[in-house]
Amino acid sequence: MTDHQPTPEDRFSFGLWTVGWRGVNTFGEAIRPPLDAVDAVHRLADLGAYGVTFHDDDLIPPGSPPADRDGILKRFRAALDATGMVVPMVTTNLFSHPVFRDGGFTSNRRDVRRYALRKVIRNIDLAAELGARTYVCWGGQDGAETEAGKDDRAALDRLREAFDILCGYVRDQGYDLRFAIEPKPNEPRGDVLLPTVGHALAFITELAHPDMVGVNPEVGHEQMAGLNFTHALAQALWHGKLFHIDLNGQRGVKYDQDLRFGAGDLKEAFFLVDLLERSGYDGPRHFDFKPPRTEDMDGVWASVAGCMRNYLILKEKAAAFRADPEVAAALEASHVGELDRPTLGPGESVTDLLSEELDLDAAGPRGYHFERLDQLALDHLLGVR
Amino acid sequence: MTDHQPTPEDRFSFGLWTVGWRGVNTFGEAIRPPLDAVDAVHRLADLGAYGVTFHDDDLIPPGSPPADRDGILKRFRAALDATGMVVPMVTTNLFSHPVFRDGGFTSNRRDVRRYALRKVIRNIDLAAELGARTYVCWGGQDGAETEAGKDDRAALDRLREAFDILCGYVRDQGYDLRFAIEPKPNEPRGDVLLPTVGHALAFITELAHPDMVGVNPEVGHEQMAGLNFTHALAQALWHGKLFHIDLNGQRGVKYDQDLRFGAGDLKEAFFLVDLLERSGYDGPRHFDFKPPRTEDMDGVWASVAGCMRNYLILKEKAAAFRADPEVAAALEASHVGELDRPTLGPGESVTDLLSEELDLDAAGPRGYHFERLDQLALDHLLGVR
Amino acid sequence: MTDHQPTPEDRFSFGLWTVGWRGVNTFGEAIRPPLDAVDAVHRLADLGAYGVTFHDDDLIPPGSPPADRDGILKRFRAALDATGMVVPMVTTNLFSHPVFRDGGFTSNRRDVRRYALRKVIRNIDLAAELGARTYVCWGGQDGAETEAGKDDRAALDRLREAFDILCGYVRDQGYDLRFAIEPKPNEPRGDVLLPTVGHALAFITELAHPDMVGVNPEVGHEQMAGLNFTHALAQALWHGKLFHIDLNGQRGVKYDQDLRFGAGDLKEAFFLVDLLERSGYDGPRHFDFKPPRTEDMDGVWASVAGCMRNYLILKEKAAAFRADPEVAAALEASHVGELDRPTLGPGESVTDLLSEELDLDAAGPRGYHFERLDQLALDHLLGVR
Amino acid sequence: MTDHQPTPEDRFSFGLWTVGWRGVNTFGEAIRPPLDAVDAVHRLADLGAYGVTFHDDDLIPPGSPPADRDGILKRFRAALDATGMVVPMVTTNLFSHPVFRDGGFTSNRRDVRRYALRKVIRNIDLAAELGARTYVCWGGQDGAETEAGKDDRAALDRLREAFDILCGYVRDQGYDLRFAIEPKPNEPRGDVLLPTVGHALAFITELAHPDMVGVNPEVGHEQMAGLNFTHALAQALWHGKLFHIDLNGQRGVKYDQDLRFGAGDLKEAFFLVDLLERSGYDGPRHFDFKPPRTEDMDGVWASVAGCMRNYLILKEKAAAFRADPEVAAALEASHVGELDRPTLGPGESVTDLLSEELDLDAAGPRGYHFERLDQLALDHLLGVR
Repeated sequence: MTDHQPTPEDRFSFGLWTVGWRGVNTFGEAIRPPLDAVDAVHRLADLGAYGVTFHDDDLIPPGSPPADRDGILKRFRAALDATGMVVPMVTTNLFSHPVFRDGGFTSNRRDVRRYALRKVIRNIDLAAELGARTYVCWGGQDGAETEAGKDDRAALDRLREAFDILCGYVRDQGYDLRFAIEPKPNEPRGDVLLPTVGHALAFITELAHPDMVGVNPEVGHEQMAGLNFTHALAQALWHGKLFHIDLNGQRGVKYDQDLRFGAGDLKEAFFLVDLLERSGYDGPRHFDFKPPRTEDMDGVWASVAGCMRNYLILKEKAAAFRADPEVAAALEASHVGELDRPTLGPGESVTDLLSEELDLDAAGPRGYHFERLDQLALDHLLGVR
Repeated sequence: MTDHQPTPEDRFSFGLWTVGWRGVNTFGEAIRPPLDAVDAVHRLADLGAYGVTFHDDDLIPPGSPPADRDGILKRFRAALDATGMVVPMVTTNLFSHPVFRDGGFTSNRRDVRRYALRKVIRNIDLAAELGARTYVCWGGQDGAETEAGKDDRAALDRLREAFDILCGYVRDQGYDLRFAIEPKPNEPRGDVLLPTVGHALAFITELAHPDMVGVNPEVGHEQMAGLNFTHALAQALWHGKLFHIDLNGQRGVKYDQDLRFGAGDLKEAFFLVDLLERSGYDGPRHFDFKPPRTEDMDGVWASVAGCMRNYLILKEKAAAFRADPEVAAALEASHVGELDRPTLGPGESVTDLLSEELDLDAAGPRGYHFERLDQLALDHLLGVR
Repeated sequence: MTDHQPTPEDRFSFGLWTVGWRGVNTFGEAIRPPLDAVDAVHRLADLGAYGVTFHDDDLIPPGSPPADRDGILKRFRAALDATGMVVPMVTTNLFSHPVFRDGGFTSNRRDVRRYALRKVIRNIDLAAELGARTYVCWGGQDGAETEAGKDDRAALDRLREAFDILCGYVRDQGYDLRFAIEPKPNEPRGDVLLPTVGHALAFITELAHPDMVGVNPEVGHEQMAGLNFTHALAQALWHGKLFHIDLNGQRGVKYDQDLRFGAGDLKEAFFLVDLLERSGYDGPRHFDFKPPRTEDMDGVWASVAGCMRNYLILKEKAAAFRADPEVAAALEASHVGELDRPTLGPGESVTDLLSEELDLDAAGPRGYHFERLDQLALDHLLGVR
Repeated sequence: MTDHQPTPEDRFSFGLWTVGWRGVNTFGEAIRPPLDAVDAVHRLADLGAYGVTFHDDDLIPPGSPPADRDGILKRFRAALDATGMVVPMVTTNLFSHPVFRDGGFTSNRRDVRRYALRKVIRNIDLAAELGARTYVCWGGQDGAETEAGKDDRAALDRLREAFDILCGYVRDQGYDLRFAIEPKPNEPRGDVLLPTVGHALAFITELAHPDMVGVNPEVGHEQMAGLNFTHALAQALWHGKLFHIDLNGQRGVKYDQDLRFGAGDLKEAFFLVDLLERSGYDGPRHFDFKPPRTEDMDGVWASVAGCMRNYLILKEKAAAFRADPEVAAALEASHVGELDRPTLGPGESVTDLLSEELDLDAAGPRGYHFERLDQLALDHLLGVR
């Protein structure tokens, strides 16, 4: 058993908005003091992270005069240099300010849409400057509480327009940057546009530059719709669209909990790490969570450490699961590998297929032995093998 | 106010399996007698439907000798002829028999996948023969209870293989038939492949003949994931992929209720009819529901009549809503139409966009007046305007 | 058809925190200006409400010097006098301040529990002074994100202690005041103590003065757990414990939406008004909702008006439903009234019961005709009868 | 680390309907052969169970002539004698037969209610004869799809009447038998009466013999409503009403999955075992699950073994968690034990309480360190400490 201490090679990253979350929500006031971005970078580096991410407004207070902005960036870069931390991803805040109350790219008001585009473009320059390779777009305010108030097809047109403009801009500037759309079913809006990974994957195919846009699935967002995150991850991978990932925890269909990774559905966390590690994905393992309001700053850092620790524990267990000969035998007994084999043989035609019969009376009773297989996974997860 | 009596022009259709559902579920035995398909056709015609649909096994008991099959089809065609009823859609039962316990097209066992393909192909011939233009595929057993037991990416490969084979077959035969995939998040499997309309839309883009495949969204299936059906419908329309629709009712995130249309989320039903009627969709309005087990056959027919009646009531109300000058003014006040206007003007560049500023202090406080608009919709729905 | 204009006889009340909600949530800043309580009282009176309610901090900013407090109360009373508005209910804010981050009455820290009790007691004096007859207790922060951190049985002990102290205080002071517990399943805490009406009803039976404590069910809170609000209301009435009610709207299992009444599950809203009006409940019809963030102050008032209008519309429809002879016949056909008849006759013994047999073959097929009955309800709701 | 092999001392029991479930559901036919009760008893005993439970119809086919019944019972008793297995609990099937389509004790039809009572009473005699001490009542068909069709208050009256009759009968016969009500939110009915543990606990207080009736919480049933099972368990214990428990697994808000224990929410399973083992509850650990339809009989027994194994693993881990000095320190740091201390000191009055002030500026920022505590629990669960 390893010590589960993270290192930069693990590619763990955190958003400034996660460690810096002050705890304001619908029912409660701020419970933690502001966190200086430079302190965050140092502390995250100390704990073993390799990267830090941010919304524009997380780093540079909205309305900062250019001189302030320069000063902030200078300090921030110095912290990055001092720690070796990188900025693998940047994103835009298109939700906090009242102007975004009906969305950004799909606000009913055209001047807001234009402002949203400007806000993103300006921040893209900074992202490129800092070496980010991924630009995440979360459109949580792009939605509706009443169907009467939003023409969804027009909204999708505007969203496509926005991504076409942004992709065009990135190409024009020669930036090495890809976009990752982050779906979410609801909250803060009653229903959000592109509610799941599936909807986002479909949307992307209609863009002018679909190759430049992928998804950033967030564990809890799929689970808020009662969907299986690992299945969503698999489909994103199947489409070649896993550009980034947001790891956190959620306990079922309810408000967005943003728990630390591992603190939600543990079995799901095991299988997602298992899949992610076997998938060839080599991007950041980004934790997008909110340290609970019950915590002070010590608790915030304990929570940060827990995210990484849990990932490493699960990674170790998943590897052991896959290496276990009994598991290999159980996978075989469950015919899991047989699904890789094409249903028609090479050169086989439908006519060939139709000439065959299956003995249903013999085939019906055959079991799949998934319970044994699943128990082996549990045994590994629980550390009793 | 009209009398809300359906006519064939309304294009209402019902599955044999809905009116013929005998009420067997996990906790209860059959509560209604078998329903003869010919009786069903006559009764549906009398009530104002224009079409009837079926799974292969609904019409022809599995294992029927050819002579029986011929006799059944002859009687069935005679009933269609006598009533003028059509068969706009056909589908396959890939779920009831024990052999499908781990799915059809994506069963871990290759011989089951081959059998599933054969079963569909044979029924496609019948569908074409009966003049159906849509072939629905619901893969409810294609899923998993344990992530260990199903390689999702292999499953998607096999699903793609299956649709490529089926599309090839339809093209080879020269049938005028399109496929419609019906997504569902779970039940009977713990998690089902292609859980939502979005996932199905994305999947379709990877097929050899994506133009031949669309979706068949079912109201309750999206709502079982807490998703807004109207938004799903809008996205399907936006992709040009609404090939068929399953109308029914569901009261929230729980087991698949399959209530009659109108008996679930009423406001959502209003907005979906509003969207469907304005969308140019001219296919069947297909009701896929299960008359509750509390009903005898009289209740079944009352339930059938209720589905159509509710659709017509909502259609009338939606039309009145759209024709109401006060609604027009409210839509304007909510800037709904403004979303149709491209965010960049003709010939405008990003440079132009960046040269503009928005007065945030002035723009932030602006309201969208959605509450008034939504209340107008409610007033129409409730019949108090 | 009436004009659905509310009057004080309708006993509609609103919280200062609803009309005054500024829109702060996890993802967004304040979008509306502060609302003066006196303005709120006048405006609510103009719109037809009869009562206004508040948390201590809604009316008197925390930390106000006594002189300020007196001035605020003087102005507030003057507004009540001028408008004839009453204060039927008062409640305490035990959630906004950081000190309540782990709850009020059940915080793990004893000094917080003591502070919570003081805060309530001080506000009870004000409630009594203003003539309130109901004191609502919502303990939304009394919960946990990790089971390890909260000893639930100790929490229930402390909650009982708190209510016993408060009831004792009210009795000692001779106030004519009853408590109403407002359950909620989650949010802001991962899981909240007394998550449903049922849990609260059970808890109350263990108190020293159970007669002084009832429930304040909130429509959306039950629906957040996928529970049927009308059934919850019925059970509260059955126990004689409906002391107050919070009316609003929710669209399924998700974050707490607090929509205006009527904007959520419309059919449920119909049946709850139907039940409430027939129940003999003569307390306030209190709307606890949050005007959506998309609205400016005009939208707030439109939302307020909508709550009351929808209630009156539904009340009218429910009365018509009950008065309809065809509904009476349908209720009879569904044997609804037969449930009122005791299962054993007067003087009947178990021995008598056991001597009887039921012909299962004859009894099994009998239908209950609920579909027809439900359609009649829908017809009334939709205004097509 | 122990070998996690169950023994009779662990008091594990299983229902005949779980191991004998043939796999019929709404979408699928039977996939497993009938299982003889005697074989089930032997196999369960071999695997380490101590008890077996049943619904009347599980053991004795409905309509069996007395001679058949006697023969069945004789064989069954012989199997019990041979294996040393006991029958700790018995229950009644009031759901499968069509006659129960609108419920048993609360069917709208009085003759059905009378039949339901007879069916229970007759089976109570058998339960007593076999030495069962607990009689479980699950009223899953007691509910409604339309509020119009069920008068809930009358339903609660009839339910109370039924329990009063049953308790009276048990007292008259001198049986040593208590009743345990099993709540469920929905399925097979749209909404079920007494949907949660809370509602059942409240209902019981209105009975003539409340001491004779407790609850039988089922893990998945609470979780189907998104409720935390451990909190429900704690409240049941607090009221002294945990008379029996149904252990299984569920993955979120969806249809009733009845997975094997451990296969659902694993963290919740850990905390519930932790609580149950510390609670003094000495009744059966009863597994009420359904081996998935993918399994053959080997899979059924693997699933049975998994339930018990997982319980023992979690029990061992929970004990280690509680014995860990670092956990003790973390509990202290989180002030968990402080909640046991009454909020008012001995002899303290409200006046004393009111004379104290809390320094909010100092108290607000204090953290609770739950993240560290929860991580320690996870570490134990994962076996990495």
